[in-house]
Amino acid sequence: MSEIIGADVRLDQLPLREDLRGRSPYGAPQLDVPVRLNTNENPYPPPPELIEDVARAARAAAETLHRYPDRDAVELRTALAAYLSTATGAGLGTANLWAANGSNEILQQILQAFGGPGRTALGFEPSYSMHPIIAAGTRTDWLPAPRRADFTLDPDAAATAIAERAPDVVFLTSPNNPTGGSIPAADLRRLIEAAPGIVVVDEAYAEFSARESAIGLLAEFGGKLIVTRTMSKAFAFAGGRLGYLAAAPAVVDALLLVRLPYHLSTLTQAAATAALRHAEGTLDSVHKLIAERERVVESLAGMGFRVVPSDANFVLFGQFADAPAAWKSYVDRGVLIRDVGIAGHLRVTIGTPAENDAFLAASKEIFVEVTQ
Amino acid sequence: MSEIIGADVRLDQLPLREDLRGRSPYGAPQLDVPVRLNTNENPYPPPPELIEDVARAARAAAETLHRYPDRDAVELRTALAAYLSTATGAGLGTANLWAANGSNEILQQILQAFGGPGRTALGFEPSYSMHPIIAAGTRTDWLPAPRRADFTLDPDAAATAIAERAPDVVFLTSPNNPTGGSIPAADLRRLIEAAPGIVVVDEAYAEFSARESAIGLLAEFGGKLIVTRTMSKAFAFAGGRLGYLAAAPAVVDALLLVRLPYHLSTLTQAAATAALRHAEGTLDSVHKLIAERERVVESLAGMGFRVVPSDANFVLFGQFADAPAAWKSYVDRGVLIRDVGIAGHLRVTIGTPAENDAFLAASKEIFVEVTQ
Repeated sequence: MSEIIGADVRLDQLPLREDLRGRSPYGAPQLDVPVRLNTNENPYPPPPELIEDVARAARAAAETLHRYPDRDAVELRTALAAYLSTATGAGLGTANLWAANGSNEILQQILQAFGGPGRTALGFEPSYSMHPIIAAGTRTDWLPAPRRADFTLDPDAAATAIAERAPDVVFLTSPNNPTGGSIPAADLRRLIEAAPGIVVVDEAYAEFSARESAIGLLAEFGGKLIVTRTMSKAFAFAGGRLGYLAAAPAVVDALLLVRLPYHLSTLTQAAATAALRHAEGTLDSVHKLIAERERVVESLAGMGFRVVPSDANFVLFGQFADAPAAWKSYVDRGVLIRDVGIAGHLRVTIGTPAENDAFLAASKEIFVEVTQ
Repeated sequence: MSEIIGADVRLDQLPLREDLRGRSPYGAPQLDVPVRLNTNENPYPPPPELIEDVARAARAAAETLHRYPDRDAVELRTALAAYLSTATGAGLGTANLWAANGSNEILQQILQAFGGPGRTALGFEPSYSMHPIIAAGTRTDWLPAPRRADFTLDPDAAATAIAERAPDVVFLTSPNNPTGGSIPAADLRRLIEAAPGIVVVDEAYAEFSARESAIGLLAEFGGKLIVTRTMSKAFAFAGGRLGYLAAAPAVVDALLLVRLPYHLSTLTQAAATAALRHAEGTLDSVHKLIAERERVVESLAGMGFRVVPSDANFVLFGQFADAPAAWKSYVDRGVLIRDVGIAGHLRVTIGTPAENDAFLAASKEIFVEVTQ
């Protein structure tokens, strides 16, 4: 029973696509250390009443598992529209919402519909590393454009890059992962106006930011603007895998042409709908995390680190002479943070006060050791 | 709250890919009629002990929803390996298994890794209609090849088609949907030998067939053979969305390069693992459905219908002068079956005895009315 069949076959013997050869799977190292601050999860477990409600919903869903789920996830999309309307003041209807297994699947569907072979997508790097990976997965040519040295977006340079390169899809990430800054509304408007095609504003971390959501611009730019969100972060629902978007109904119609039928399970739809009933309680953790973020930023700065201003539930900081070595020093102290590949910098997710204390204690020792 | 933003934007105003323009979303009509025999679901609800176990698993999973799921779904894949090893006698290990949100996502990942732009996939039509749709979604050129007039596969002609057209990926569906027949082991071996690239044997309905599984050929053809399965049908888990495959570990490594990270939610992994603990009980329904299938086939033949021999949980039958009109006649009698686009034929899913009785009663009336 515990044998492995075909173990002698090597990956390089398979007729893999040429562009995939030699690549490694995406993913943060999953290490078993006491303090895990590496994947921007919400450190607070779901509140007991949410757990009970999700369990009740899952039990009811289990009774109908022999039937396919609602292909169009209408009840869930209605709940998402109500949440977003309350959160942003926009009057969104069910037809404005679409949901999938994580925002990665949302982004993949967008590029299947509006990107793909012979088309281009542009993003301002460093940014969410899945954008170019999903572009590659859908064979959309990726056009990287730069940010300022301080990781903010230069609106003049960005508008020029968009106008000159005329990408089919532009990704704007606000707040930006892994750097933490968000885009002012005036800049956002200008960049959307400059874009010849679709603009995706990735707002995975929007609940942690005081900045106005791009959803307020949908009424004006419905023919080109898509705002993506996730329940993974603020909603503490990373394990539930629920990404969603707000857009004009015609955009949702376009995604229906590329989505895999019945992509969202009955359990996912039921659990996410249940979790949304507890939005107010869950989002309490957001305020705690914002307060902790400010404490971590001040403490790091007080130790002498350079800290990139953050609107999200993580902080990018440096300046390390050797970031991979510094990352290892944190692991050695039982603290797992993320080396996101930006020279001299590491990213830490804001955890519970105790986790942040452990991180800060390690940081104090490491500053002396390996900063430049 | 119930407004819709951007409702004035039309789909044809969006910069949709040209090849998607004018297309309609895939999906069987979902009508509210008493007897639904249109999507090959298992009509038997999960047994109470399975519902309790899934509910318990979901409750435990709910407590950890703030954390990302196991990216590699090791526990679930181990359970799937044990089930398949018992069912087929093959000694499969965890490394031989991969799982995703429905076999559609499995097939999409296979084509992302081994198909895509500049590559081809071949299937013998009529067959599962999602094969060419997923090929289109991954921009893999689709090569349709014919079956005999009686919908069986001509092994000589099929081997020649594969050798001549040299597709990167071949789809063999056994039992075949929507026609119901399966492929003899000797033919399967011959077709795999003829293929220059990857061969996917889609065994979504394998549990309903007495035919040997292609999994027995994995030890010999590990460098090119992938066998896909689903929990939707025999396992009565359509709502849970769990597709899987058995292959050499190197094939799984290839799919890790294209899978979206954390694609399978904690709830899906927990619920599917719980459902697998009840495999024996759930698969009891398979025997009942096979017996009912034989009854339906005999009854239809007795009425004068031409019935295509089936190894699955559905039956293709005719000959109708006007299949769409006949389909409507069934709906008018409260019975929803499927017009799969094969001239003169309709497909009925095997339901409970009462559902099959309702279908057969309608058939008796309709035979007089609209057959030729």
